[in-house]
Amino acid sequence: MPSDVQLAFASIAEIGRLYRGGKLSPVELTRFLLDRIASLNPRLNAYLTVCEEQALEQVVRAESALPGKRRGKSARDLGPLHGIPISLKDNIYTAGIRTTAGSKILHDFVPLHDAPVATALKKAGAIILGKTNMHEFAYGTTSNNPHYGPVRNPWDETRIAGGSSGGSAAALAAGLCYGSIGTDTGGSIRIPASLCGVVGLKPGLGRVSAEDVIPLSPTLDFVGPLARSVEDVALLLHPIFTRGVTERSLLPRKFPSPRARRAKLGMPKEFFFDVVSPDVQRAFDHAIRILKKGGASIKEISLPLLPETEDAGNQIAWAEATLYHQQAGWFPDCSADYGEDVRSRLEMGTQVSAVSYLKALQTREKFISAFHLALEDAEVDALVVPTTPIAAPPIGEESTSIGGALHPTRALLLRLNRPANLAGVPAISVPCGLTEDGLPVGLQFIAAVTDEPLLLELARDFEHASPLEARPVLD
Amino acid sequence: MPSDVQLAFASIAEIGRLYRGGKLSPVELTRFLLDRIASLNPRLNAYLTVCEEQALEQVVRAESALPGKRRGKSARDLGPLHGIPISLKDNIYTAGIRTTAGSKILHDFVPLHDAPVATALKKAGAIILGKTNMHEFAYGTTSNNPHYGPVRNPWDETRIAGGSSGGSAAALAAGLCYGSIGTDTGGSIRIPASLCGVVGLKPGLGRVSAEDVIPLSPTLDFVGPLARSVEDVALLLHPIFTRGVTERSLLPRKFPSPRARRAKLGMPKEFFFDVVSPDVQRAFDHAIRILKKGGASIKEISLPLLPETEDAGNQIAWAEATLYHQQAGWFPDCSADYGEDVRSRLEMGTQVSAVSYLKALQTREKFISAFHLALEDAEVDALVVPTTPIAAPPIGEESTSIGGALHPTRALLLRLNRPANLAGVPAISVPCGLTEDGLPVGLQFIAAVTDEPLLLELARDFEHASPLEARPVLD
Repeated sequence: MPSDVQLAFASIAEIGRLYRGGKLSPVELTRFLLDRIASLNPRLNAYLTVCEEQALEQVVRAESALPGKRRGKSARDLGPLHGIPISLKDNIYTAGIRTTAGSKILHDFVPLHDAPVATALKKAGAIILGKTNMHEFAYGTTSNNPHYGPVRNPWDETRIAGGSSGGSAAALAAGLCYGSIGTDTGGSIRIPASLCGVVGLKPGLGRVSAEDVIPLSPTLDFVGPLARSVEDVALLLHPIFTRGVTERSLLPRKFPSPRARRAKLGMPKEFFFDVVSPDVQRAFDHAIRILKKGGASIKEISLPLLPETEDAGNQIAWAEATLYHQQAGWFPDCSADYGEDVRSRLEMGTQVSAVSYLKALQTREKFISAFHLALEDAEVDALVVPTTPIAAPPIGEESTSIGGALHPTRALLLRLNRPANLAGVPAISVPCGLTEDGLPVGLQFIAAVTDEPLLLELARDFEHASPLEARPVLD
Repeated sequence: MPSDVQLAFASIAEIGRLYRGGKLSPVELTRFLLDRIASLNPRLNAYLTVCEEQALEQVVRAESALPGKRRGKSARDLGPLHGIPISLKDNIYTAGIRTTAGSKILHDFVPLHDAPVATALKKAGAIILGKTNMHEFAYGTTSNNPHYGPVRNPWDETRIAGGSSGGSAAALAAGLCYGSIGTDTGGSIRIPASLCGVVGLKPGLGRVSAEDVIPLSPTLDFVGPLARSVEDVALLLHPIFTRGVTERSLLPRKFPSPRARRAKLGMPKEFFFDVVSPDVQRAFDHAIRILKKGGASIKEISLPLLPETEDAGNQIAWAEATLYHQQAGWFPDCSADYGEDVRSRLEMGTQVSAVSYLKALQTREKFISAFHLALEDAEVDALVVPTTPIAAPPIGEESTSIGGALHPTRALLLRLNRPANLAGVPAISVPCGLTEDGLPVGLQFIAAVTDEPLLLELARDFEHASPLEARPVLD
């Protein structure tokens, strides 16, 4: 039997092998994780709701259906996620389990049905351990939640986990689940993945259903998986992926991937490297050396309109978020129930003019064209950039100094992520080392076209060439 | 030979028969119309630009290509529009001919190429006599143009012709062309057709290209034909219609149309009859009796959300118009060059919030669903309603009294037209008699689905059953 820590940090495939070899019971593993959550969550605040009862009910059924030495005849193996305990961000509808979206307003909201992503994961056999903490209404990057307390980064509990899917990333980094589903409007999957040393994928436009997921800005919202390895991310993406590849795996066995080795990577000259902390730059440069050693072809390319996308993304998100909260009847009627930062952003949303909003949509259209043209012209298959220009900042820090200049922390964290939301292409963040302070740094691949499998192959090859050996010390 | 007046008011088919019988020369007819324009346009102000030289050049070529007794061997008959003089609203690009959109700002704008609708009509053999006066930038319903003078209604020159395509309708009513192309964002084809006693059709969404037509509000803009009869409207629509029926005629020969006779018509209980002048109500009631006598099945139906569409249409048009004028660099830089009414609407456009705009788009979506549901539920093929609640008001009249209450004239004229722009379905206005003052009244058919042929058949059958015997007295 593996040690407790080995078990908590095992891969989905390892757990599956233990299950099918009769060496581990899904019910036992689920109890083990529930105990681990009970012991660590009061410190980390990664989960808002732990649904012990439902999880145990689910896993008992999963266990009885799992084929294996000691199991029943009515066995039906549901595949890699059968009996695997995962978590869902708390803005994803779960039948009978409260779904707060990290808000006071939805403190007691219990949906009557599951979101399609939750249904798909349950059908694939996954066990829902609970709902993860997040930035209130997904409207921020820190997960410093005023109603439920901040999510704490397992690598340094005085620091943020990033957001808005901070609880998902923290739960993974602390070994409190094997995968999680988050949402990403301007980096909300990739930012916490980067800051917590896990893998997070924002899929391409239309690839994963956002139905019954409490929206932030429908034009820019994406739903996607986080996990501790690229392979685990691929396994989680599989049942929720809406196009084409439902039968075969999203990640071929062959390693290193011939497609990834042939892929040409672009490094944008503009914008992405203008404001990067020395720590992150060092980790990124090291990652580039590793990619080159692996045979990658990397070239500098020029990508226009990037500063404009920053403002366009804000205009679109502000207006659409305020629209939703107004129509839900919460804003301004329940103004006092929002945290100060979210309330002030909702107020900003009322100030966006229709003309500015329409111009922002036009900027987005132009950026999509320019992005595809630039990458086609340069003949690159993906961009390689940092995920965040900084490692996890301390909880409550509103601005961060880089090279002597102060930058608003929120804008810094969004900065390198939003282009993929505007372009609608998939992007993945994979750990690429630690800063001198021992904080994880994320490397981001942004696909030229809607090709998640290529991203997964690129990220897996990188992960194998440069694994993150360390792990948060929690005990 | 027909008399001058008979010639000026002949149908397109009659002109074609005279041409092909060798009894009339296209060049002669064009000269005749140019003379008529020279004599009447100073009074009516229907044309902003008469392109005598280009029209004569065009018609000489058309004449030499027209097969007939006295014509050359290289004859090639282009069909019903071959050699037919028409006009285009002055917001439609015409190569080498100035296109002012009724504005001072574009006083000297000469496009380098034709709009696709102009190209298609020329290819079908139509002769472009000139560009018609309009409400400045199509942003109003009176065609009381502050830069080029008001379009005057041929039925009473102290009254407006309606707008924004007022010059097109006035030119037709005065026998100054055989057809015209206008644009309609909230009734701008149907309102002047109604007020000038001609026929005007707003096609369904996507049916006629709006490319290289100076926009007002792209979400609600439509390009379509006006003429003196339904048959002429069908002939003009044919070459510019983008879907399906390019080979066969849009209007079957068979009369009365079996399809139109079988059609079920709905009269909405709500909104459409709340504010209607007694004159128009009388003409409408008479029309209903005629329709019933012809065997039509007419029932009252309920249509929700109509008051909301009025506001939604305003929000959408205001925001999109201001966006266009800002991006063109005209507003606010050339504020002084706009007429007061258009300038104040452009200023209103800056005040529309993104949230209001997005809500208006949602209202539109909801209305589209509700419209289709209501008409399907009631099993009706089209609605029958008045086109405008009033006949042509005096030039300069800002408000109109109905039953003792004053209403803003602009809103009154838009009121019954905008629903079809929001729903995206086709609608046609056909004359249905005169008021006691001898002013024309329009009857509107709004199709349940995008089925222009049905509308044409309904309108033609009505027109045959109840022809407008009178004609403006101009000499």
